[in-house]
Amino acid sequence: MPIVTIQQFPRSVEQKRELARRITEAFAEAYGAKAESVQVFFSEVDGENWAKGGVMGCDREAGAR
Amino acid sequence: MPIVTIQQFPRSVEQKRELARRITEAFAEAYGAKAESVQVFFSEVDGENWAKGGVMGCDREAGAR
Amino acid sequence: MPIVTIQQFPRSVEQKRELARRITEAFAEAYGAKAESVQVFFSEVDGENWAKGGVMGCDREAGAR
Amino acid sequence: MPIVTIQQFPRSVEQKRELARRITEAFAEAYGAKAESVQVFFSEVDGENWAKGGVMGCDREAGAR
Amino acid sequence: MPIVTIQQFPRSVEQKRELARRITEAFAEAYGAKAESVQVFFSEVDGENWAKGGVMGCDREAGAR
Amino acid sequence: MPIVTIQQFPRSVEQKRELARRITEAFAEAYGAKAESVQVFFSEVDGENWAKGGVMGCDREAGAR
Repeated sequence: MPIVTIQQFPRSVEQKRELARRITEAFAEAYGAKAESVQVFFSEVDGENWAKGGVMGCDREAGAR
Repeated sequence: MPIVTIQQFPRSVEQKRELARRITEAFAEAYGAKAESVQVFFSEVDGENWAKGGVMGCDREAGAR
Repeated sequence: MPIVTIQQFPRSVEQKRELARRITEAFAEAYGAKAESVQVFFSEVDGENWAKGGVMGCDREAGAR
Repeated sequence: MPIVTIQQFPRSVEQKRELARRITEAFAEAYGAKAESVQVFFSEVDGENWAKGGVMGCDREAGAR
Repeated sequence: MPIVTIQQFPRSVEQKRELARRITEAFAEAYGAKAESVQVFFSEVDGENWAKGGVMGCDREAGAR
Repeated sequence: MPIVTIQQFPRSVEQKRELARRITEAFAEAYGAKAESVQVFFSEVDGENWAKGGVMGCDREAGAR
């Protein structure tokens, strides 16, 4: 613990590496948590597996995501 | 909010599009929720990543799923 | 399968009953799924356990949720 | 999107407020994501609903959590 | 890793303790995983937060759950 | 119910088959649950979608996972 699960559009490894580092720092700063106790899972979905407003991501305009 | 995560066998985009539309309408009708507030995530698993009754989906007969 | 998990603000049992019924019908109509195969889980969070835009729900104005 | 779900031991609202703010900033910095697109859900469990190493949290010594 | 999340009806601590112990052993036997790497989370729902077949648990007969 | 979701590194079908069988037995023994009521979902992530201690799995040494 803590376990962080992120549902998001696909991102590059560089972006996920940066995000995981910053989120882990956030737990240290806000909770005083040890870095090794923090695990981050990325669950990526594309526009064919996500909908908002009843419209699939693949059918929405990019700016509306 | 609300966030809907669906664990299911793979379906076509057409089927998911139809389902996401209907689920979003259900939130409008039952809760009075604005469509744009509803997000639906599809998390698809095949028979090698799901078991029921202690038997993997890939080992079960189709009718028993 | 399918398993539906809904993250939402607390609602009355009447509202959840109505929503679960409609969502289950949506699976029957969009997928041809048998009603008994559909399970719906409600995971309710209050404003002290949810944030949007970096602001806790309990700190946001009601209209901004 | 993105949706962040955090499984953790109970924390004060002050700590969660601080964490949610920092995590949302992390998405802005690492992904260039708009703050309003980021939602954070806290799913808190106590020692009677979590186990590590096959031992319930309520049976572990505090330092071993 | 691995992280196990269990959605279930409420159970006693004794039952959850027994289950967590056995599940952790299962990972050791099937995967050769170290016990300390296995975390189990219990997410309990009552009949007002779960539906099957479009019917809330609190409306179903006990035998039909 | 119960629904078991496992976040893990990729494993062979043989290993998952063995684990699902043992976990289902664990529910029977600890809860007296009927096997057919137990569903197990495997959500596999590789080292590019998981971080511990702020370091991506693909950047960690194998022994540190």
